[in-house]
Amino acid sequence: MTSPPHFELLSTDGGIRRGRFHTPHGSFETPCFAPVGTYGAIKGITPAQIRETGTELILANAYHLSQRPGADAIGRLGGLHKFMGWDGPILTDSGGYQIFSLDDHCHVDSDGVTFQSVIDGATIRLSPERALEIQRDLGPDIAMVLDHCPAGDAAEEVVRAAHERTLDWARRQRDLHESWGGAARGQAVFGIVQGGIDPQLRADSARQLVALDFDGYAIGGLSVGETKERMRQALDTAVPLLPEGKLRYLMGVGTPEDFKMAVKHGIDLFDCVTPTRHGRFNEAFTRHGRIKMRNQQYTEDGRPIDDECRCYTCQNFSRAYLRHLAISREMLAGTLLSIHNIHYFQDLMAEIRQGSEEGTR
Amino acid sequence: MTSPPHFELLSTDGGIRRGRFHTPHGSFETPCFAPVGTYGAIKGITPAQIRETGTELILANAYHLSQRPGADAIGRLGGLHKFMGWDGPILTDSGGYQIFSLDDHCHVDSDGVTFQSVIDGATIRLSPERALEIQRDLGPDIAMVLDHCPAGDAAEEVVRAAHERTLDWARRQRDLHESWGGAARGQAVFGIVQGGIDPQLRADSARQLVALDFDGYAIGGLSVGETKERMRQALDTAVPLLPEGKLRYLMGVGTPEDFKMAVKHGIDLFDCVTPTRHGRFNEAFTRHGRIKMRNQQYTEDGRPIDDECRCYTCQNFSRAYLRHLAISREMLAGTLLSIHNIHYFQDLMAEIRQGSEEGTR
Repeated sequence: MTSPPHFELLSTDGGIRRGRFHTPHGSFETPCFAPVGTYGAIKGITPAQIRETGTELILANAYHLSQRPGADAIGRLGGLHKFMGWDGPILTDSGGYQIFSLDDHCHVDSDGVTFQSVIDGATIRLSPERALEIQRDLGPDIAMVLDHCPAGDAAEEVVRAAHERTLDWARRQRDLHESWGGAARGQAVFGIVQGGIDPQLRADSARQLVALDFDGYAIGGLSVGETKERMRQALDTAVPLLPEGKLRYLMGVGTPEDFKMAVKHGIDLFDCVTPTRHGRFNEAFTRHGRIKMRNQQYTEDGRPIDDECRCYTCQNFSRAYLRHLAISREMLAGTLLSIHNIHYFQDLMAEIRQGSEEGTR
Repeated sequence: MTSPPHFELLSTDGGIRRGRFHTPHGSFETPCFAPVGTYGAIKGITPAQIRETGTELILANAYHLSQRPGADAIGRLGGLHKFMGWDGPILTDSGGYQIFSLDDHCHVDSDGVTFQSVIDGATIRLSPERALEIQRDLGPDIAMVLDHCPAGDAAEEVVRAAHERTLDWARRQRDLHESWGGAARGQAVFGIVQGGIDPQLRADSARQLVALDFDGYAIGGLSVGETKERMRQALDTAVPLLPEGKLRYLMGVGTPEDFKMAVKHGIDLFDCVTPTRHGRFNEAFTRHGRIKMRNQQYTEDGRPIDDECRCYTCQNFSRAYLRHLAISREMLAGTLLSIHNIHYFQDLMAEIRQGSEEGTR
C-alpha cells in the first residue's frame, strides 16, 4: 500500500467511480462533497457539528487565510488543522478564482497577479510560487495550484493566454512542490484544467497538465454562469483525458442536480458554499425540493424539514420552530438549517456511493 | 417526598444556601444560573451545546413568545419544551420588566397594561390573568407573575402605586393558578417582590407576597441602574422576610461579582443575558477578568481563553483562532464565546455550591 497522500479507485460502474483518498489526517470516500470554510470556519457550525453531518473533507481558502490572520501566523500556531480544530482532511483552494473574479481590479502577468485586497485595499502581489508557499505554511492535506481563471465571457485570445499561463504556472508549482518534498511530507497538490468552453483548449489543458503528473486534477472555470449544457460539454472533453487512477475534482459545484450529472462523467469530488449559504438565507434542501423556511405555511407545521433525515436538526426541531427562528432573525436558524443542508448533501453522496457499489456487484 | 414542583433546601452555610428544585422535567441544583433564550433559543447555541455547558435550567420570555409565534401556537405544537427541543426545566418570565421598560409607550391601570408591540406597533393589552394564561399554554416548569416594575427613578407615589398593584395582581394570579390546578399539573408559580429601593415598601411587598404562599419568590426591580449598595440593601431588607423553604430568585442579575455577593444574602437563582451578549460582542469571562477577544495581543496567542476551563471552546480552540473569527466577523465567534461564557458561569455556580457543602461539613 502506498503511503498517503494517494487516491485508491475502488470500483467503477459505467461512469460512476467509487474511491477513497488517503491523507495523513485520515481518508475520505469518493464521490465526496466538501463544505466550505473560507476563513477557516464553516459559517456558524462547530467542527463537532460538521463531523456529525457525515462530512469527511472540508475546504478552506489559502488566499483569504493568508490575508487574515496570515499563513505564517497559522504555521507558527501549528498549522490549519490545529488552528481550526478539525483533525480530518483539509483541502485549500489557492484563491485564484476569487482574485480573478475581482475583474477590473486585478492585473495578471507571466509571473503572477497584482490586485487590491478586499480587506484594506492594499496592493497585493501573488505569484504561483507564493500561492504554494502559503499552502506549505498552512499545511492542508491537499493544496491547489494557482491558475488563471478568465471571466466566462472573455475573448478567445484572453482565454488562450490564460490557458498557457495556467500550464506554465502549473509546471513551476509542480517543480517547487517536489523540491520541498511535498508528497513525502504528506501534502498532495492538484492541478487545475482550464480552457473555458473551447473543447480544443480544454483538451490541450487536460493533456498537458496530465503530463506534469499531479496527485489529482480539478476542472476549473466552470459554474461561473455558463449553461448546464456547456458544463456537460467541458466535462465530456476533459475528464476522459485524465488518468483513471487520480482523483477528479469539479471546483465550486454545486447543487444535488449537478452532482448527479457530474458523477456520471467520472467526477470524484465537489465543493460548494450552497448548503451553508442557503441555510443562512433560511432555505432547506429536501428530497422533494427546496423549502423557504420563512413561508407562512410552516407556522404550525410540527413535522421536521424532512422526515427521513437523521440530522440533528430534523431529529430535534419542527418546521414551525425553524420558521419561528428565521422570522425572529435568531442566528440559530442559520446554524440549524446549514447543519441540515450539509447533512442532506452528505446523505446524497452516500447514496451515490452506495448506488455505485450496488451497480458493480 | 412531595411531588414536583417543589424546592428542597439541602443545607445552609451562614447565608449561602444549597438546594434543589424539582420539576416534571428533572431537577436543578441551587444556587443556579439560568441562561436566557428570550424567543425560545439561546442565541447561536443548540440545546445539545447548552447541555454541555452544565446548564440545567433555561429562561424564556412568555410575552415575547406570545407575540411571536403565539402561545396558543406553541401549545398546539406540544408546548415550549418540545418546541425548542429542551427537555430540562424551563422558567418563563411574564415580560413585565420588558413592557415597563418601554416607558412612555405603555399605560398601566388596575386591570393590566396597554402598550405598543415592538414587532409591528400594534396596540396590545396584557392583564395579569392573560400573562398567566400565556404561561399555561407554553407550559414552562416555572411561571412568573406579571408585576408592575416602575422605572428606577420613579416618584415615590408611582413606586407605591406599583407596589400595591403588584400585590393585587399577584393575588389574582395566585388564585387563578390554583383554580387551574397549576401545581397539580406540574407548574410552579413564583411571586415577585417589588418596592424599589424604599426599605419599608420592600418589606411590605415581601411580607404580603409571602402571605399569598407562592412556590418561590423573585426579587424584582433591581439591576436597573441602581448602585451595588442599593441592591445589597434591598436584598438585606427583603430576603430575611422570605420563607426558608422556598426558592429565592434575583431576576436579571448579572455578573460573577453579583452572584458571589447575592448568594451570601441567601439567593438561590439568577438569570441574565450577560454570557451570551458579551459572547456575541467578542468578550470572554475568565478567572482573571474579562478578555476582549479582538485585541491585537491575541493574534498569535496559542493558549485557550482559560487553561483551567473544560468547555468545548477551551478544549479545542486558541485565543488566536477566536480573535481571527471575531475580526473576520464569523458568526462562529459568538457561538464559541457564548459557550465558554455560559460554561464559565456554570463552573462558578458549581464552585459556590461545592464551597457551601464543604462549609457545612
